[in-house]
Amino acid sequence: MKNEDVMNIAKKRGFLWSSFEIYSGVAGFFDYGPLGTILKNKIMNKWREYYLVGEGFYEVESPTIMPEEALKASGHVDHFNDPMTECKECLEVFRADHVIKEAIDQEVEGLLNQELTEILSNNQIRCPRCEGHLTHVWSYNLMFQTLIGAKGKKTGYMRPETAQGIFIPFKRLLRFYRGKLPFGVVQLGKAYRNEISPRQGVIRLREFTQAEAEIFVDPQDKKHPRFQEVAQQKLTLYPADAQEAEGEPVHLTAQEAVDKGVVSSEMLTYQLCLADQFIGELGIPEKVIRFRQHMKTEMAHYAIDCWDVEIHTHRYGWVEVIGIADRTDFDLKSHSQHSKEDLSVFMEYDEPQTITKLTAKPNMKKFGPLFKGNAPKIMEFLKNTDVDLIKKSFDENGTFQLKIEEESYHLTPDIISFEETEETVRGEKVYPHVIEPSYGIDRITYSVLLHAFTQENDRNIFHFPADLAPVGVNVFPLVNKEELVEIANKIKDDLRGEGLIAEVDTSGTIGRRYARSDEIGTPFAVTADHQSLEDNTVTIRERDSQNQVRVLISEVPSRINGLITKKICFSDL
Amino acid sequence: MKNEDVMNIAKKRGFLWSSFEIYSGVAGFFDYGPLGTILKNKIMNKWREYYLVGEGFYEVESPTIMPEEALKASGHVDHFNDPMTECKECLEVFRADHVIKEAIDQEVEGLLNQELTEILSNNQIRCPRCEGHLTHVWSYNLMFQTLIGAKGKKTGYMRPETAQGIFIPFKRLLRFYRGKLPFGVVQLGKAYRNEISPRQGVIRLREFTQAEAEIFVDPQDKKHPRFQEVAQQKLTLYPADAQEAEGEPVHLTAQEAVDKGVVSSEMLTYQLCLADQFIGELGIPEKVIRFRQHMKTEMAHYAIDCWDVEIHTHRYGWVEVIGIADRTDFDLKSHSQHSKEDLSVFMEYDEPQTITKLTAKPNMKKFGPLFKGNAPKIMEFLKNTDVDLIKKSFDENGTFQLKIEEESYHLTPDIISFEETEETVRGEKVYPHVIEPSYGIDRITYSVLLHAFTQENDRNIFHFPADLAPVGVNVFPLVNKEELVEIANKIKDDLRGEGLIAEVDTSGTIGRRYARSDEIGTPFAVTADHQSLEDNTVTIRERDSQNQVRVLISEVPSRINGLITKKICFSDL
Repeated sequence: MKNEDVMNIAKKRGFLWSSFEIYSGVAGFFDYGPLGTILKNKIMNKWREYYLVGEGFYEVESPTIMPEEALKASGHVDHFNDPMTECKECLEVFRADHVIKEAIDQEVEGLLNQELTEILSNNQIRCPRCEGHLTHVWSYNLMFQTLIGAKGKKTGYMRPETAQGIFIPFKRLLRFYRGKLPFGVVQLGKAYRNEISPRQGVIRLREFTQAEAEIFVDPQDKKHPRFQEVAQQKLTLYPADAQEAEGEPVHLTAQEAVDKGVVSSEMLTYQLCLADQFIGELGIPEKVIRFRQHMKTEMAHYAIDCWDVEIHTHRYGWVEVIGIADRTDFDLKSHSQHSKEDLSVFMEYDEPQTITKLTAKPNMKKFGPLFKGNAPKIMEFLKNTDVDLIKKSFDENGTFQLKIEEESYHLTPDIISFEETEETVRGEKVYPHVIEPSYGIDRITYSVLLHAFTQENDRNIFHFPADLAPVGVNVFPLVNKEELVEIANKIKDDLRGEGLIAEVDTSGTIGRRYARSDEIGTPFAVTADHQSLEDNTVTIRERDSQNQVRVLISEVPSRINGLITKKICFSDL
Repeated sequence: MKNEDVMNIAKKRGFLWSSFEIYSGVAGFFDYGPLGTILKNKIMNKWREYYLVGEGFYEVESPTIMPEEALKASGHVDHFNDPMTECKECLEVFRADHVIKEAIDQEVEGLLNQELTEILSNNQIRCPRCEGHLTHVWSYNLMFQTLIGAKGKKTGYMRPETAQGIFIPFKRLLRFYRGKLPFGVVQLGKAYRNEISPRQGVIRLREFTQAEAEIFVDPQDKKHPRFQEVAQQKLTLYPADAQEAEGEPVHLTAQEAVDKGVVSSEMLTYQLCLADQFIGELGIPEKVIRFRQHMKTEMAHYAIDCWDVEIHTHRYGWVEVIGIADRTDFDLKSHSQHSKEDLSVFMEYDEPQTITKLTAKPNMKKFGPLFKGNAPKIMEFLKNTDVDLIKKSFDENGTFQLKIEEESYHLTPDIISFEETEETVRGEKVYPHVIEPSYGIDRITYSVLLHAFTQENDRNIFHFPADLAPVGVNVFPLVNKEELVEIANKIKDDLRGEGLIAEVDTSGTIGRRYARSDEIGTPFAVTADHQSLEDNTVTIRERDSQNQVRVLISEVPSRINGLITKKICFSDL
């Protein structure tokens, strides 16, 4: 079954479709319909179970519109670009790297615009549409721009990632965690990328949903306190060197991956394991999941190590659905510099340390008369100057030159003496490193749909795990008899009383109704029949096995609840 | 206690704060912190319990960026405006209605720009900041504008409401509901309003969260099938005429409100009742809730009836938190016209009806020779023409003139005869009316914070209902002894295993820890003490009563779970 066919069924049954259809659509935007929204929300809530309840992280929610200053600091204003070229004849614009890849099958990630222009011209690559000449390559910023306020003077952008909304209020978050590392903060929400001409459906959206965790760790200690819980978990890893050698992925336990240095730290490996558990619990088979390490050329310059979780699809091959990176201290440092706010953490030593410190002391008898009214500001300057630099300059040049407000002053050894003092230091300021698992919720939802679907003798079935299925249970009267419809409605109301999405369907034959129920992936169907009127029992049918068991009507809500939350098995009924 | 003080505590403890603080902030944007996000999410999930599980509606998720055509159809491009004026001296811009209100205390809602300009000039109103002269009044569109795609040719806007994302795919939604009215569809998500200069904190945001339901009903039948369930519910209603007469709100049951015609339909009244239940369940006292009907001047021109749910706050007086309107068929009709897609519903009659239809038949003997080659297109034209018009024109003028492609033709009774035919009609096409409850989630969250807070002998307490509190339970070792800390951690893990947010706090005296727990509104605290080591019991303390009971450690998770989901009472422990 092709991906397109699965998506057609998903569209027809109300999972998702292209947005703005009645206005001829706009590429890169999708609607989640009645069933798709529940599925997506259940995936996000399961994510929260992992990261909020399981890991003990907290969630924040920051605006999707951000002011330019903040995105200047994050690097997005200057570097969140795609290389573009325009046809001089038909005026169509293209991504230069895509045009080159199509024309001569060359990967050009990481090259400069100038280099791309040369490749285009050296290989006489022309417009893929009309064969016209292409312009030089320029950078196109991928953020949606807007103006904030009435006079339109403040430039803003739709955020390119949710992560920045966690870095910016870092000081408040650090205070919430009482100043102690490590801690994690997550955000789930929309992010935006103004793609040039997206043509890959849900895979390349201009507006998409991310779930990101930013875990702030001591740069000196990337061990994970709960690593033992995952140490024996098997991972399918495709390291950069294996890719370069065009080799195969390797199968290692988390412990082996760390011991062999395949993944750079326990902290990062633990996140790989968590992602693997999460994706597995969504019903995606192990054999279509792999972890691919970023090659040096594709990794952000500030990152130490980065792994993509990829899921294989029939149409697009291996698709990145999660990125897990060690972003180091890049973001916090950069926001500190741009905002002039100190976003470092004071890390207390286990024991206070005594350090010997060299200080420069002016010989006041000479110092005062020499510098007169300037003496105080020179002394102030000295306090903030690295004494070692002064000493070194004396040793090498016999003098030390300093500049205050465009004026130069010369210090010589006769007016400065050095003194050793002892100081007790409780700790030091450090910028935490950031471990970031970044989940693309739309691609994950798409993968769940694809891999849940089967067609068996014309039966279309979405085999969603019971706790992800949009409709938890369908209730049917076997025939359209008033007493049976009444029983069905009563059961539906009781199930809804338990917080479950339950529906009654009375139209068509019972076979047709089971088929419809399977096609939207409803895991259980309850049927009231003639026997129900006699002994107050109904049947529960399991979607995947098609088996049926009889239970008392009064027990239906607790049984179905147990089945959906996986506290009981169907075979135990 | 002033609102500002409550919000200061909320900020300090991690509920919410102004966004982008390190970049000097941008007015109209707020971050939800670790505790605020849980609170807001719990409010949204409770909303889903009401509307998805309770009412049986389905949720959709559509993009926040929308193309211009769609917002042209909805009226937002032309009418989502504020009246503006600029100071000719200091160049500051102001909302003209606000300037007038401040200067001469006159309400000017609904007036034209020209009229506002006259009021400004007739009353010699000057710039509130520098006393300069003000310009004429112009319209400022409140949508954030952006450009979609690489060549920047497609104008888009951040959506001003989530509702439009439900109207646009109406045909797909109707199909999902198998073509039958009434049905409801909801959306929760961000909406945007580029306020000129927002100065009221969370009350006036440029980016905010809505929860909207669009309920599509038969225009001929606005009775609600479950009205009896709410008929006796008491509501505090402030109808338009009482406001005009500067009278007081009235207290009526839902049944009385409908019978006396105070609210326009059962469908609308039912939604008022639901909103009242919802707000009540958030812990907001009945006495600060009222339903205020829109005055004729403030109601959208297409609406039949509209009620705001208002909550009283110390600082801002009565604040609108929910709007409940009968939008009629305005939206669906307008999108039909603009998109040329038929968004009407075919409503089948209970019984097929036989109707007598008049048709015009040409007398071919005369018709052919008279019109020659034009005869076929005149006949085609006749098929699509209202026969009554022809008949009327014959009666009045003895002739009927028609125009095809700039040519005029005259028909006379001698070449046209009329025939009566019978036709069976199964139903008719109608545009459903839309009942819309629209919830402002940020204002509701703010109201919950305000009204949950009390200060009792220096004890700061957020009295959140147990199921809304961000942290469900705090676990304390009475003293910092290893065995007790171990027990506390074990209990915390067990509680998290149940999906609850539980925390261990070991720092400071037990009194200090209870105080901290109360100040973030945690409803229960579990304390392990020396007795725990002997008999495996711990105490559970209730926040509001400060009472404590001892329970077995093994029973803590189920007891706490029961208390938080309100299945058991503390006094029954």
